[in-house]
Amino acid sequence: MDKVGIIGGTGYTGSELSRLLCTHPEVELAALTSRQNAGKKVSDSQTFLKGYVDLAFTEKIGDTKDLDLVFVATPHGVAMDEVPQLIESGIKVIDLSGDYRLHDTAAYAKWYGHEHTDGENLQNAVYGLPELFRNKIKGAGLVANPGCYATSIILACAPLIKAGVVDNDIIADAKSGTSGAGMVPSPRLHHPFCGESVIPYSVGTHRHTPEVENAVEMFSNVGVKVTMIPHLLPIVRGILSSCYMDLKKDMSDEEVAAIFEKQYGGEHFIHYVKEPSIRAVVGSNHAHVSSNVLNGKVAAFGVLDNLVKGASGQAIQCMNLMLGLNETTGLDTPGLGV
Amino acid sequence: MDKVGIIGGTGYTGSELSRLLCTHPEVELAALTSRQNAGKKVSDSQTFLKGYVDLAFTEKIGDTKDLDLVFVATPHGVAMDEVPQLIESGIKVIDLSGDYRLHDTAAYAKWYGHEHTDGENLQNAVYGLPELFRNKIKGAGLVANPGCYATSIILACAPLIKAGVVDNDIIADAKSGTSGAGMVPSPRLHHPFCGESVIPYSVGTHRHTPEVENAVEMFSNVGVKVTMIPHLLPIVRGILSSCYMDLKKDMSDEEVAAIFEKQYGGEHFIHYVKEPSIRAVVGSNHAHVSSNVLNGKVAAFGVLDNLVKGASGQAIQCMNLMLGLNETTGLDTPGLGV
Amino acid sequence: MDKVGIIGGTGYTGSELSRLLCTHPEVELAALTSRQNAGKKVSDSQTFLKGYVDLAFTEKIGDTKDLDLVFVATPHGVAMDEVPQLIESGIKVIDLSGDYRLHDTAAYAKWYGHEHTDGENLQNAVYGLPELFRNKIKGAGLVANPGCYATSIILACAPLIKAGVVDNDIIADAKSGTSGAGMVPSPRLHHPFCGESVIPYSVGTHRHTPEVENAVEMFSNVGVKVTMIPHLLPIVRGILSSCYMDLKKDMSDEEVAAIFEKQYGGEHFIHYVKEPSIRAVVGSNHAHVSSNVLNGKVAAFGVLDNLVKGASGQAIQCMNLMLGLNETTGLDTPGLGV
Amino acid sequence: MDKVGIIGGTGYTGSELSRLLCTHPEVELAALTSRQNAGKKVSDSQTFLKGYVDLAFTEKIGDTKDLDLVFVATPHGVAMDEVPQLIESGIKVIDLSGDYRLHDTAAYAKWYGHEHTDGENLQNAVYGLPELFRNKIKGAGLVANPGCYATSIILACAPLIKAGVVDNDIIADAKSGTSGAGMVPSPRLHHPFCGESVIPYSVGTHRHTPEVENAVEMFSNVGVKVTMIPHLLPIVRGILSSCYMDLKKDMSDEEVAAIFEKQYGGEHFIHYVKEPSIRAVVGSNHAHVSSNVLNGKVAAFGVLDNLVKGASGQAIQCMNLMLGLNETTGLDTPGLGV
Repeated sequence: MDKVGIIGGTGYTGSELSRLLCTHPEVELAALTSRQNAGKKVSDSQTFLKGYVDLAFTEKIGDTKDLDLVFVATPHGVAMDEVPQLIESGIKVIDLSGDYRLHDTAAYAKWYGHEHTDGENLQNAVYGLPELFRNKIKGAGLVANPGCYATSIILACAPLIKAGVVDNDIIADAKSGTSGAGMVPSPRLHHPFCGESVIPYSVGTHRHTPEVENAVEMFSNVGVKVTMIPHLLPIVRGILSSCYMDLKKDMSDEEVAAIFEKQYGGEHFIHYVKEPSIRAVVGSNHAHVSSNVLNGKVAAFGVLDNLVKGASGQAIQCMNLMLGLNETTGLDTPGLGV
Repeated sequence: MDKVGIIGGTGYTGSELSRLLCTHPEVELAALTSRQNAGKKVSDSQTFLKGYVDLAFTEKIGDTKDLDLVFVATPHGVAMDEVPQLIESGIKVIDLSGDYRLHDTAAYAKWYGHEHTDGENLQNAVYGLPELFRNKIKGAGLVANPGCYATSIILACAPLIKAGVVDNDIIADAKSGTSGAGMVPSPRLHHPFCGESVIPYSVGTHRHTPEVENAVEMFSNVGVKVTMIPHLLPIVRGILSSCYMDLKKDMSDEEVAAIFEKQYGGEHFIHYVKEPSIRAVVGSNHAHVSSNVLNGKVAAFGVLDNLVKGASGQAIQCMNLMLGLNETTGLDTPGLGV
Repeated sequence: MDKVGIIGGTGYTGSELSRLLCTHPEVELAALTSRQNAGKKVSDSQTFLKGYVDLAFTEKIGDTKDLDLVFVATPHGVAMDEVPQLIESGIKVIDLSGDYRLHDTAAYAKWYGHEHTDGENLQNAVYGLPELFRNKIKGAGLVANPGCYATSIILACAPLIKAGVVDNDIIADAKSGTSGAGMVPSPRLHHPFCGESVIPYSVGTHRHTPEVENAVEMFSNVGVKVTMIPHLLPIVRGILSSCYMDLKKDMSDEEVAAIFEKQYGGEHFIHYVKEPSIRAVVGSNHAHVSSNVLNGKVAAFGVLDNLVKGASGQAIQCMNLMLGLNETTGLDTPGLGV
Repeated sequence: MDKVGIIGGTGYTGSELSRLLCTHPEVELAALTSRQNAGKKVSDSQTFLKGYVDLAFTEKIGDTKDLDLVFVATPHGVAMDEVPQLIESGIKVIDLSGDYRLHDTAAYAKWYGHEHTDGENLQNAVYGLPELFRNKIKGAGLVANPGCYATSIILACAPLIKAGVVDNDIIADAKSGTSGAGMVPSPRLHHPFCGESVIPYSVGTHRHTPEVENAVEMFSNVGVKVTMIPHLLPIVRGILSSCYMDLKKDMSDEEVAAIFEKQYGGEHFIHYVKEPSIRAVVGSNHAHVSSNVLNGKVAAFGVLDNLVKGASGQAIQCMNLMLGLNETTGLDTPGLGV
């Protein structure tokens, strides 16, 4: 049985990895690191894991031997300090931060505001969206796990761009639950501020913008421009991205639907539906895609649980591919529904 | 002191009219009708009005004599049965339903799904958005009070269309609290369904679409096409509409801001701000407008309380104008802030 | 593999049974009934089950042969029409409504407001709270699955009553998410009404009151009086019941904790914790119990997901016992945590 | 016109004071202090006050001359550094922190965890709950404005204790919106943590406990013991406290109601109602009280907006009394209702 570890086991994506891995039948969760909690039982701070994770946090991932794969669930800027040594040791790596999602150091510096110190691995990292890049992921040593917003937008837009039926100018009005922002308290995430509101933020500057552009281009061979505005919703889990694209010529709802059905008809986790629903997918690795033709445009929706298909679930899906396991292992449960 | 009445005093917009009128210093709230509750004290069902409204519901508005102005706060399709007689009696009317917002009976039939039976008044009705049509409202006998979504979108788009700096193709991604849907329970408004989700609905069919198109055209003399998708938010009060328009030529954030400042700089209730906030306006007749230039587009936001500036507050603002009162009377309080 | 069916497959508890049973490795979900949707695919209305449940609804449970066990997930008053025939046919039954939870027809008539027509099975039904009545459930032909509020209160109080350390006068201030009220829209569950409030209801009349009294007495041989006030919370899933009991003599927090640890230390799904958390258990069959000594009283908390440990998860736990399976099969996943 | 100032103008209670004072017809809001924002316009940070408050923050309250009354809206522990000098200068003071609510320095040290340095004023401070202590407030130089939880509990319990119909052992299960915790982000107030949960906290240690005991005793001359558990709700504004007391002898609902009606029948802001509602009072200085007799107990509810009747509105009510104004001036609007 493959042994896996998590660097950054206390954050939301680290916890969600633990939640999903602890019942995964074919890998062993063997290590979680936390500088602050090193030596303490994981289930003392993450009480929902009591009975499921019997480990204590370690300080460094190197404290655990014979790991086959490591998830890096740290803030961006930290991952790039950890990854080179892991890769060198022959350990497969899935990075859930933004550090390896862009193609080159210049783009990274522009969007993240500081230099990238690991340009070599940056070039080789595979973008971990299995429905679009499955084969590359299977052979990858380093996977950059997609951002939550990015996944929802890419799923809703990439098939239409590839089919050549829409212009390459995408407006993505994205709406996310608060858990996407992580566990560190801040004024924007303070309940009295955000709990009964919807708040646009990072207008024109959100780092998932270039990520969507890159991924869509890689998949479709068409360069695209993305205008993305994230909005914070007063819910904990869930993203719905409403994407608007101009049709090149008149199409019916059915013709557009056919493109999505062709792309996703064989997928286990992606469902083309008439009424996209956050509650239908929340808690699971499933995603909804939907579309409507109106006024010569397509409005396409991408819906998912930001912590599962938007982060840790997708990372495990990648892990399954990288380790030669069945892609759905450990992830094959429906959303909560209600 | 002018005497006013409300037809449909038990719904949300009727209640909100009562809430605002009961402390209005220059009109007397003299009548509220309700078929079901006729004869019962208003404050027995609307307990928050105890100590403020001492009336009992009457069955018909005609039961009360000498009214100067009547608000019609019924569902659409009902208002057109009430309005002709009121107008004939020389009573000024403000209709909060959708019955008098479109210009002609054909458009009404298309969007509302049934015939309009009062074409004459339909033609004469004035669209009650004071910041754009103040002078017409002053002299009006019948005002069609704008829809909540429509107000938020028009405020964010009309100045740019009029200034001729953007294309006439508007994408309006609108997000509303649940009180906008009224007080009748339904599956979509059932808390377990909508309480932890965001739900797009009426895609391409929402009746505020032609209303926005008409109002913007009247104001700017430019025909526009609106692609509007409403989304239901898990909050009670508040709308934020994110509107996307292509710039005809490069402009800076400051240049776009200048257009809004010119339009709204002298307005009491409209504020051009950097960070639009539902909480800043909720409970009040104030609205926020904001804009960002990105990717050759303008993203403009319109924010308001759907029951106040999006309905009953705006209706009272119109009433003030129609009765020759100061426009802000009875409405001049800040939003809750938190 | 045992075959199971669900009468009332479209309601929240029926859907939740489907969600959990569709991945249960040792039973086959073979039938779901729905009068309204008979003949239609289950996953057309319950879209989150797409890929997991491939059945169509049938009109009657009798349409499916060779069922070993049937869950009755109808409103109370309906179950008693279905149960006698099932029992007679030798099919094991778990009723999730309130129809078989009280001991006698007189109590039923008093609390439910109509007669009970199946007094015989009522007498024989076993109350399905495995942690307290495991052995009886194993041999039962008819299990009355506990109410959601009742489970949370019983778990928090029964051990202390049995240990004889508190008076038999329990105050249960119970707080529930809205999904506990079922899927039928109503004024109280209308989002604008309940979405930003907390609402006490059924004060002194809630039907889980006698259920708690009966269950605690059965378990402890001590008659108790329960003063229960349910409060509706603006969340979808989750119950926290705060229970207050007078200590008979001074005890420390540790001594009280020891009683709970003794009772639940060996349980897989019940966790005695310092900081009870809805988010730690939501989506799972786990429950938290916690306690504090203050002012000569114990404040004890019971926390669970009302649709899982408070309804369908607990029903499956009972099913596992009745069918001779491992009690945790199909239920052994942690809560969402966040 | 009297001139008033606010020390601590940026916090939630300071902002709420500004919101209410800016439309108060008989006082002038002349000063707001903020160390961090000194020199900046108030409406730059509190954008909802744009058009209503034209002041800039000052560093010290002494920077403004001729103030008649000062509100101290700082955290506890800070107020006691400000109050002595104000009192000495002959300025009336209303302290919204907890610094002057308890009677003696020993109790303060026990509950607040640090010494009180202004014992003299502590002894003379008047507890500012107008419905119970109106006459004392009229003549006070220093008013300790009650806590939000405390107000809701006292209103629900004090009349019954005074009437001698219940035992002096009060259980207060209190539920509050998040704005009661103030504007500083913290893990408990982080939306992903609290946004879909209800969280008991400060069990047995909440500082409003002795405050309730003192106030009830002052009012009724009966010593009481309060067992209070606060619970954090996922709403922004609003408190509902459910209080449980044993009846000394059998009473009907009507007899208990009569006691409340007698106490509050003449009050403008307190309403004895059958169905207490947060939404009916939110945004206003009104409060609901309700009661039910069950099992030989009274369950009494106190409901209010924690920032208005639970803080800043009540402070202005006290101010009106202290300045010889009509008690309701500037506060006389109904709650939002929806």
